[in-house]
Amino acid sequence: MSTRYGLLLSSALLMLSPLAAAQSADTADTKADASADAGPDGWMQGFPPPENRTIRFTDDDYFAPPKLGWTVCHFRELMPTAGVDNGTAGARELPQALDDGIGDVTFQPTGSDDRMTFDEAFDVNHSDGVLVMHHGEVVYERYAGCLDENTLHGVMSVTKSITGLVGETLVAEGTLDDQALVRDVIPELADSAFGDARVREVMDMTTALDYSEDYSDPDADVWTYAKAGSPLPPPDDYDGPRSYFEFLQTVEKDDQYAHGEAFGYRTVNADALGWLIARSAGQSVADWLAERVWSRLGTEREAFYTVDSIGTPFAGGGFNATLRDVGRLGQLVLDRGELDGEQVLPAEAIDSIRQGGDPDVFAKAGYDGLKGWSYHSMWWVSHDDHGAFAARGVHGQTIWIDPEADMVIVRLASHPKAANAASDATSLPAYRAVGDYLMAR
Amino acid sequence: MSTRYGLLLSSALLMLSPLAAAQSADTADTKADASADAGPDGWMQGFPPPENRTIRFTDDDYFAPPKLGWTVCHFRELMPTAGVDNGTAGARELPQALDDGIGDVTFQPTGSDDRMTFDEAFDVNHSDGVLVMHHGEVVYERYAGCLDENTLHGVMSVTKSITGLVGETLVAEGTLDDQALVRDVIPELADSAFGDARVREVMDMTTALDYSEDYSDPDADVWTYAKAGSPLPPPDDYDGPRSYFEFLQTVEKDDQYAHGEAFGYRTVNADALGWLIARSAGQSVADWLAERVWSRLGTEREAFYTVDSIGTPFAGGGFNATLRDVGRLGQLVLDRGELDGEQVLPAEAIDSIRQGGDPDVFAKAGYDGLKGWSYHSMWWVSHDDHGAFAARGVHGQTIWIDPEADMVIVRLASHPKAANAASDATSLPAYRAVGDYLMAR
Repeated sequence: MSTRYGLLLSSALLMLSPLAAAQSADTADTKADASADAGPDGWMQGFPPPENRTIRFTDDDYFAPPKLGWTVCHFRELMPTAGVDNGTAGARELPQALDDGIGDVTFQPTGSDDRMTFDEAFDVNHSDGVLVMHHGEVVYERYAGCLDENTLHGVMSVTKSITGLVGETLVAEGTLDDQALVRDVIPELADSAFGDARVREVMDMTTALDYSEDYSDPDADVWTYAKAGSPLPPPDDYDGPRSYFEFLQTVEKDDQYAHGEAFGYRTVNADALGWLIARSAGQSVADWLAERVWSRLGTEREAFYTVDSIGTPFAGGGFNATLRDVGRLGQLVLDRGELDGEQVLPAEAIDSIRQGGDPDVFAKAGYDGLKGWSYHSMWWVSHDDHGAFAARGVHGQTIWIDPEADMVIVRLASHPKAANAASDATSLPAYRAVGDYLMAR
Repeated sequence: MSTRYGLLLSSALLMLSPLAAAQSADTADTKADASADAGPDGWMQGFPPPENRTIRFTDDDYFAPPKLGWTVCHFRELMPTAGVDNGTAGARELPQALDDGIGDVTFQPTGSDDRMTFDEAFDVNHSDGVLVMHHGEVVYERYAGCLDENTLHGVMSVTKSITGLVGETLVAEGTLDDQALVRDVIPELADSAFGDARVREVMDMTTALDYSEDYSDPDADVWTYAKAGSPLPPPDDYDGPRSYFEFLQTVEKDDQYAHGEAFGYRTVNADALGWLIARSAGQSVADWLAERVWSRLGTEREAFYTVDSIGTPFAGGGFNATLRDVGRLGQLVLDRGELDGEQVLPAEAIDSIRQGGDPDVFAKAGYDGLKGWSYHSMWWVSHDDHGAFAARGVHGQTIWIDPEADMVIVRLASHPKAANAASDATSLPAYRAVGDYLMAR
């Protein structure tokens, strides 16, 4: 494999498994505080942009800081995508009731003695946009970096939660049996580790897979997965899987746990669920989402998924939409699937998500910052006294739903560190503080 | 260069200059009549599609029959693109007044003794969709192949006419001087053949360029152009231009004619105009079109352009939209830029296009089937007694505007032959016959 190909490959890897950015992001730590100097404004400006401010898909660092700050808003200009049609009815206006007090709400970051304001946290977390909705009204909306109200942003692994929401809907509607064995829905997966897992175990990521997402290990399976999903031409000597579907068939079983015993955050589960959805519903998750949700939600813009070389939407991390449109989706979930008196999604589907999974099963994955949580239907469930639950993606992407406060917070971001552990300390207490503030008004 | 790379390269070439498909299409002649058997229905169906019915961007024949019939509706799933936002207001409904008689209108194909109906011509021309509008109402609308009312289709070199329309608008509004020398607008082009050409000569493709679009010649400049515009990684040993902008700077002058003396159909002029537009207007042709036209036209869907590796919209052939939305654009041109009492585009811009260029200058290019025509502002002007003019793209894409009949015809197609000469005989007389029919009702 040539050096050039090595670069390209690593580029493709970063794209296909957004989590992979952890590696490059960690090495770029020192640039975190300098991002203002090399922010998105300096990149890809002009016709043509200066060569040293140009970003290509074939750059090995296109998804690492400082380029990351531009890339998160421009995935479709770099790679193939599948559209998520928003219909012809036009946008449903979001009611506005901006509250200037929200930016000044203070909270105590985890492990810190100092207090911080919600506005300060916006910057500290490298936010590109934050939307807060309360009782269905926009009470806070702020943009920075590459984002404005009209620009789509990658939501990274928040995509998984959308996939889970679709899966739960199919279960609620009887299209997909969550107690079925995967091999009975997708015979091609019979010989893989997924074969004798239940659909529910895929949805909850409790499948026992011999599959590593350790980005510091060059032999980790995630790299093979990324190669399989790359839309770029493979090297001459490559004879491995050429699509998500092909890769999933190669995943082998781990023997530390049996299916259902332990949570393990592995992106392949989301794409396996994407396949289960496509096979059950007879359409891709992108087409399903367009027909059933995106065109009925009063969204402002068509959304999209990045795709592999055969056009499969990346159900594990490829969704892109505007801040407000993600807010509309979050509000639909908060409202148990109802919009303007119409049941867009079944309430049971969302109730199942909110109820969460088994915290003991979750605990085996060792997330120190998320004690007592669970992961269920590809959503992160806090089990706190507000019943808060979340969709989370690398570099700070979040949909935070607080049913007790009747609040949705969406954050789109380009934090130089991939893992959300980097921003949780200045995020999770902030969300709670804003919820408490809104409840006390 | 490896064999594999040779294949990829030829694939990229086919994408970047749609005209290039002439080569593969001509060799595939014998398949023309068999396309029904291997039509789009057989391709890319299922999760996953069968391997022998899978289409990848890296296939050397993805833009040749029979794959062509699927690809024309799925460019964005194969390659990077730039969106053309359609705003948030929703679609403006097209008035419907379907006339069943139109399909039965007969005409005499050029050079034939037999008559043919308009419906028969739909099939003969491998049409994916045909829309006829009369007095602003839809009187005929038919879909086939990969197309339906909700699907976007590549319009190929019809894109050039959109670029020309934007250029004429900037001229009418004083943003771009069509008598300026190109080098005075884009200093980077000073040393190229474009440098001492006037903007008008670029718009009319009368620049004197030593540039060949002869697809049968492997050394033709069009292949170098396609390489420059490819979003795919270049070969290890490639050190040529990496964008449309870079390539345009390398074009040299021809000495057979001086600028302005002879029409020569060369795609590079359209991308040079795209650059002139971007530099003058301060935004890409895609963003300009979104802001000024697509979001104000009541379009049903966001459109897009394919882009090069630095995100430059392919102003020479990369536009994709639905049949009805292309119809809306055609109607706007027919109506001299006015929609519902609002002047969306200046009437002078469209009047300039309709007036056409010098047929003697056009004649030097030797289009036997288009005697007496001219090419002006990237539109084909017939100079017939109806004042008809057209946007035309390979494989049968057409916007036909007949001001006398107050009629617009849009055809999106996947004719196995690239050159429109292959379908003109069963198209041009058909358009006239439908115009006459509508006038006589």
